[in-house]
Amino acid sequence: MSYAQRMIESNPSGPAVADTAALVECIEACFDCAQACFACADACLGEGDIQTLARCIRLNLDCANVCESTGKILTRQTAFDLEMAQVTLDGCAQACRLCGDECEEHAGHMEHCRVCAEACRRCERACDGLPTLRDSG
Amino acid sequence: MSYAQRMIESNPSGPAVADTAALVECIEACFDCAQACFACADACLGEGDIQTLARCIRLNLDCANVCESTGKILTRQTAFDLEMAQVTLDGCAQACRLCGDECEEHAGHMEHCRVCAEACRRCERACDGLPTLRDSG
Amino acid sequence: MSYAQRMIESNPSGPAVADTAALVECIEACFDCAQACFACADACLGEGDIQTLARCIRLNLDCANVCESTGKILTRQTAFDLEMAQVTLDGCAQACRLCGDECEEHAGHMEHCRVCAEACRRCERACDGLPTLRDSG
Amino acid sequence: MSYAQRMIESNPSGPAVADTAALVECIEACFDCAQACFACADACLGEGDIQTLARCIRLNLDCANVCESTGKILTRQTAFDLEMAQVTLDGCAQACRLCGDECEEHAGHMEHCRVCAEACRRCERACDGLPTLRDSG
Repeated sequence: MSYAQRMIESNPSGPAVADTAALVECIEACFDCAQACFACADACLGEGDIQTLARCIRLNLDCANVCESTGKILTRQTAFDLEMAQVTLDGCAQACRLCGDECEEHAGHMEHCRVCAEACRRCERACDGLPTLRDSG
Repeated sequence: MSYAQRMIESNPSGPAVADTAALVECIEACFDCAQACFACADACLGEGDIQTLARCIRLNLDCANVCESTGKILTRQTAFDLEMAQVTLDGCAQACRLCGDECEEHAGHMEHCRVCAEACRRCERACDGLPTLRDSG
Repeated sequence: MSYAQRMIESNPSGPAVADTAALVECIEACFDCAQACFACADACLGEGDIQTLARCIRLNLDCANVCESTGKILTRQTAFDLEMAQVTLDGCAQACRLCGDECEEHAGHMEHCRVCAEACRRCERACDGLPTLRDSG
Repeated sequence: MSYAQRMIESNPSGPAVADTAALVECIEACFDCAQACFACADACLGEGDIQTLARCIRLNLDCANVCESTGKILTRQTAFDLEMAQVTLDGCAQACRLCGDECEEHAGHMEHCRVCAEACRRCERACDGLPTLRDSG
């Protein structure tokens, strides 16, 4: 039960993006992906064969950091800066792609990587699909 | 659509707390409250009379930082440390109480404060209600 | 070259704590400890025998999260809330103690744990020694 | 007294970038800039004329979030991913440029904005100057 929708609707400055539904989905996708990535890093740490999972743990943590940062930036509607938003969205989509690719490699035998890849794909799509700077000209 | 439940179920080390449903609710309440608090700080910044909202903005940001930290700590099931968890939960419940009290003062005329107070109360309850160290003796 | 000292001196609301030097030291100790803990978690991940380091990695990440949250809360001078500050400082001192104790166990054969333990001890001392609520009565 | 240098030297996987001094400077510039930006947002909140500072507060918080995320990603030496690093560095340099430009507008009459602009410029330079992907071909 996220509060993102209600918080944007009651924000005197918002919504900063015309498509509120897409904005809410992107905010939720970012925070949900961050949580899934932090959880996947921890689950990998508990697996037997860690050496082969070092890259997965690393990308999980990187992606989680980028997603939480992006989620916070999109949460703010006041004095929204289109350039800052677009740079952040582009970086987040790429981070999700890299982490999602890695998790997908392990998705067949580790359910946590399968779920995390799903979270990364959803967040990548949401960031790629949010119309901000490219549509403002 | 949070992934917390599925991530815990697929974590080879977890769940660290016997009552998985309470753990999932607490993780989700922490991250949802952090998002609501970041959003409320921004919404307050867009209001006309900021001077009277400085304390609200400040507690929003403090509470958001504590909640995101607590959400991450609870997300990790591997080598779960009961003392670390309990200290964190206690601090988070108090942060949510302080921020919820402040937001409630403005809830009558600002919907974002009303929603944020709701998020804080839910998170305070979830942190207070999660049985960890106190029940492990 | 931290900016904490100059930022507090130029903050129209601050300093929130009478002993500015102690406040600056605490802010710097929190952020430096967070960085050291994130670094130690990563260094442990690169070591050969990870299974024995799972607890260290976990406490590193927990402590890093608590320290970065505390550093941000202490950074804010406007509408400083003594109760919020004290709860946060107490929790941070305990997190640093737990992580410092664990790192110290490995300090003899892993330099990164030795440095991290040093960072944790410094931060624990700074948080314990910062006079806020207890001295305000 | 940052621990970044000693943590990288004792990391079994690192340094991920040949120029260790540039890497350490970049990590420190990121975390120092994040702290300065969080502090500047708070200092602005305490100023009399907030309406004109809404954009500054907003960009401060955005830049702080991007910088702390970048600082964490660069802190990790294990399974360093050049593409992730480069995307992150590019985004961080742009965030610092946007925030630095805004702070510079107020630098003449607000010392906290002058110091924060200095932190942003240093971090922008460090991110732009760190040789990773572009030099690896």
